[in-house]
Amino acid sequence: MTANLRIMPLGGLGEVGKNMMIVEYGRNIIVIDAGMMFPESDMLGVDHIIPDWQYLRDKKEYLRAIIITHGHLDHIGALNHFLREFKVPVYATRLTRGLIEVKLKQERMLEQTTLHTFAAGDVVDIGPFTIEPYHVCHSIPDTVGLGITTPAGLIVHSGDFKFDPTPVDGWPTDEAKLAEFSSRGVLVLLSDSTNSDQPGSTPSEAVLDDAFHQIMREAPGRLIIATFASLISRVQQVVNVAQRHNRKIAIAGRSMIENTQMASDLGYLKIPPDMLVKLEQVKKLPPRQVVIMATGSQGEPMAVLNRLATNRHQSLHIQEHDTVVLSSHTIPGNEEMAYRVINRLFQRGADVQYGPLAQVHVSGHPGQEELKRLINMLRPRFFVPIHGELRHLVQHAKLARELGLPDKNVAVIENGYPLNFDGGRMRIGERVPGEYVFVDGSLVGEVGPELMRQRDGLAQSGFVTAITRYDRKKGKTLGRLRIITRGFVYVPDAEELLSKARAIVRSSASVQRGTAPEQVEDKVEQALSSFFYQETGRRPVVTVVMLEG
Amino acid sequence: MTANLRIMPLGGLGEVGKNMMIVEYGRNIIVIDAGMMFPESDMLGVDHIIPDWQYLRDKKEYLRAIIITHGHLDHIGALNHFLREFKVPVYATRLTRGLIEVKLKQERMLEQTTLHTFAAGDVVDIGPFTIEPYHVCHSIPDTVGLGITTPAGLIVHSGDFKFDPTPVDGWPTDEAKLAEFSSRGVLVLLSDSTNSDQPGSTPSEAVLDDAFHQIMREAPGRLIIATFASLISRVQQVVNVAQRHNRKIAIAGRSMIENTQMASDLGYLKIPPDMLVKLEQVKKLPPRQVVIMATGSQGEPMAVLNRLATNRHQSLHIQEHDTVVLSSHTIPGNEEMAYRVINRLFQRGADVQYGPLAQVHVSGHPGQEELKRLINMLRPRFFVPIHGELRHLVQHAKLARELGLPDKNVAVIENGYPLNFDGGRMRIGERVPGEYVFVDGSLVGEVGPELMRQRDGLAQSGFVTAITRYDRKKGKTLGRLRIITRGFVYVPDAEELLSKARAIVRSSASVQRGTAPEQVEDKVEQALSSFFYQETGRRPVVTVVMLEG
Repeated sequence: MTANLRIMPLGGLGEVGKNMMIVEYGRNIIVIDAGMMFPESDMLGVDHIIPDWQYLRDKKEYLRAIIITHGHLDHIGALNHFLREFKVPVYATRLTRGLIEVKLKQERMLEQTTLHTFAAGDVVDIGPFTIEPYHVCHSIPDTVGLGITTPAGLIVHSGDFKFDPTPVDGWPTDEAKLAEFSSRGVLVLLSDSTNSDQPGSTPSEAVLDDAFHQIMREAPGRLIIATFASLISRVQQVVNVAQRHNRKIAIAGRSMIENTQMASDLGYLKIPPDMLVKLEQVKKLPPRQVVIMATGSQGEPMAVLNRLATNRHQSLHIQEHDTVVLSSHTIPGNEEMAYRVINRLFQRGADVQYGPLAQVHVSGHPGQEELKRLINMLRPRFFVPIHGELRHLVQHAKLARELGLPDKNVAVIENGYPLNFDGGRMRIGERVPGEYVFVDGSLVGEVGPELMRQRDGLAQSGFVTAITRYDRKKGKTLGRLRIITRGFVYVPDAEELLSKARAIVRSSASVQRGTAPEQVEDKVEQALSSFFYQETGRRPVVTVVMLEG
Repeated sequence: MTANLRIMPLGGLGEVGKNMMIVEYGRNIIVIDAGMMFPESDMLGVDHIIPDWQYLRDKKEYLRAIIITHGHLDHIGALNHFLREFKVPVYATRLTRGLIEVKLKQERMLEQTTLHTFAAGDVVDIGPFTIEPYHVCHSIPDTVGLGITTPAGLIVHSGDFKFDPTPVDGWPTDEAKLAEFSSRGVLVLLSDSTNSDQPGSTPSEAVLDDAFHQIMREAPGRLIIATFASLISRVQQVVNVAQRHNRKIAIAGRSMIENTQMASDLGYLKIPPDMLVKLEQVKKLPPRQVVIMATGSQGEPMAVLNRLATNRHQSLHIQEHDTVVLSSHTIPGNEEMAYRVINRLFQRGADVQYGPLAQVHVSGHPGQEELKRLINMLRPRFFVPIHGELRHLVQHAKLARELGLPDKNVAVIENGYPLNFDGGRMRIGERVPGEYVFVDGSLVGEVGPELMRQRDGLAQSGFVTAITRYDRKKGKTLGRLRIITRGFVYVPDAEELLSKARAIVRSSASVQRGTAPEQVEDKVEQALSSFFYQETGRRPVVTVVMLEG
């Protein structure tokens, strides 16, 4: 039998509960967030990864709603896939809803979706649950954490958050609400572990003002500031500082143009109308009056910054005295690409401010002292670290134990492990089936480990296919021999190797009369593979086709 | 005409002069180091990269010697390739020579190579050059920097170095020698830029003692310490601390076993004989008396740590109360792999100490304050930052200018740009031809950009090859149609897609009588490609073969 209350993170093997959490009580389920992950570098050809919601398929009729904490892709990026399977209402704050609408419109799914706007401070009843979104600071405005009252007790889900006393929009995390939750008694706290290995507190967004002032004062020419397209508050901050330095603002990159447009329309971003100029008009301004906000701080091949670094941007080109600022942290796995872009920008003569050299970015997640503060404020009975890799959760759990939570009240779980709350205890249940769901082109979930292995083999050494006709009666090949190869050797330089390979096909296909073509194919494949390994030290995918007749 | 003195870094587009530098005077050339680089993640199938020494091929008879600063792979890893082309004597210190001998023996090249041992403090005349190796601290013992007296003046090449006042082997960087060089007057300083973006000084190796003491005291069971196989001084340090905690030492991983054996034989590593145990004997000891030194701190798939993380090691398995320490920094590009290994070790129940959580590693390269100190000690007339990506060189050049070196006396150059010293001036010459030389299996330099593109295409979406016989007279296919595919779709699940594809081949190959098979192949390829893109959103490499007859 199922426990009365069940909480479970869903996803693949990466960050736990970041992309999706479910809360289940009896025959009622609410889902929190539906985000996507980006593939690691050995997940070849995969566009992105979505949570495995196999568990929900058997319980479709129990689903009451999906609640979104904020508008980042790792929280909304799988919503289109999710809503295709589950027709449930979506709850989100105004800005988050705006971002969701952009996405659903692209997918032509906007009209058949029910979207509810809620705001921090609202109280929403959904089945047996009472949802109370509360404001938190994060690197995108209008982010919320959630109080979820269930018949078994109060759950607090921190969302992605930090305690920033001086955020750009002047709206700090709602500590009064947290105090109120605490006074009601918190059954379980689910809290953001992203930075649980960082000592201290995350610096306030306000510290960046000084750095931006200094850079704008000293930069001898144009300033190009790259950051995440969703980092609306960073754009606001740059606008504020630029205004005092008499610099105009241009926006480069489709996603940043869309996001800033939408955030301006909804009032989350305020750019004085005479400050905003089109990218094409930048040429006409004195360089010291220009700031360009751009995408591509991770070195993404198609984004603005890489196109500038390789001089492939339509209207913008790096010129002497340009200063480029990378106002973001580099996501693990992107370092090579980002550093390559930085080196190329230097090569073109720009000065580049980045990473440890200048304080031009602060994280959107809480450091260890903030994490402890949240636990101490809420004094939850049970504690579950979420939003992080296992190493982050372990670290976060250590902090909770240091604050006095008993071992058995702290659960470090991976995606797919249910937590059952019953009779005043928390028990970890059996893992439900599920793994990575890869999205590759329009294929969802059809690309699995076997295909990854095949792609890896091809990526390492390419393939060779040898094709000829075969006469079974004579035990001999017949007519022309075709060799198709890609990714193995550079054909114009490999004449000798390939002509030896042809001789091997002919000779090893010379067999006893009446031998079945399948047998000959196997034999020739083996001979060719050994030959190639001997000659080149590599193992391309070798296939031999003997067409009978 | 050539300048009297020419200095040039060789290599690909990565770190400048790290893998090879040349010094040329008239008809005399000496080469410094012959190292290899590891490929970046988009260099598919490449084993490693060696410098492009095209420039030297035309000047073979001028080559006098190759001088090696220390035994790391990025300084000796291309020596076998180099010596195959250039039969010149090699100069190295004792330990470095030991490491070179291991490598040349594997390649069966030891006997035909002339190896000279020199020591810090020696003076070696080679043609018009006088070479004075001097001791420097680095993360491998017996490392040297070089004073190179040429008729045009004194060059100082820093090698990889740091100023560590309390190194593990008690042998600090030879500042007296540097002072002497300074008093003679230094024409040009070539200096290590690896950490030029790190403020302050690199902490001494000695600071790790405290961390290791604490970890050995608190670890409730076995300790597994992973680091670079070449980090002999780290092994020594662990041995010293382990001795005081009554722990025995076992070594896991072939490269680490070989290196520690060789360093012990030459006296660079001192392990008391009763402390060293075989890995197989570890089981018989109480867990609190065990330290295992292992390879794999970068998450390398075949190294010990990953095999432990995935439970695929022959004799060693993670057990409860094991503590794993990653005593190394993660090289950019390896983060994903390293973190995956850490997560899996946690999953198996080990505690893991790493990265920012514990001070268990210090760099082998100098921070900004040390770099300034070297420049101030030597007061060179010209300054050339080397050993770093362009971004590091730019940063290092800024430091030199801050110390008062005139702009025109500081040269930031990339690999392949010669610096010509003539008439008291330094001029940057025209870039000599050269690019990345990829080593892939036994192929050296034959794998180029076109092949990389093909592999990338295959890695993204795999390939489909359709093969059938074709009757030109009838303008029709004949007999069986074979479809070979890898990395595109998982065949057991793609019956419908592939059977539609067959129908498309048949129908689009039904053409006017007499059509040449090449034309039909083109037509069918286009039809198939569009079909697959439409159905899956992906573009596999499609090839169609129509065998006539």
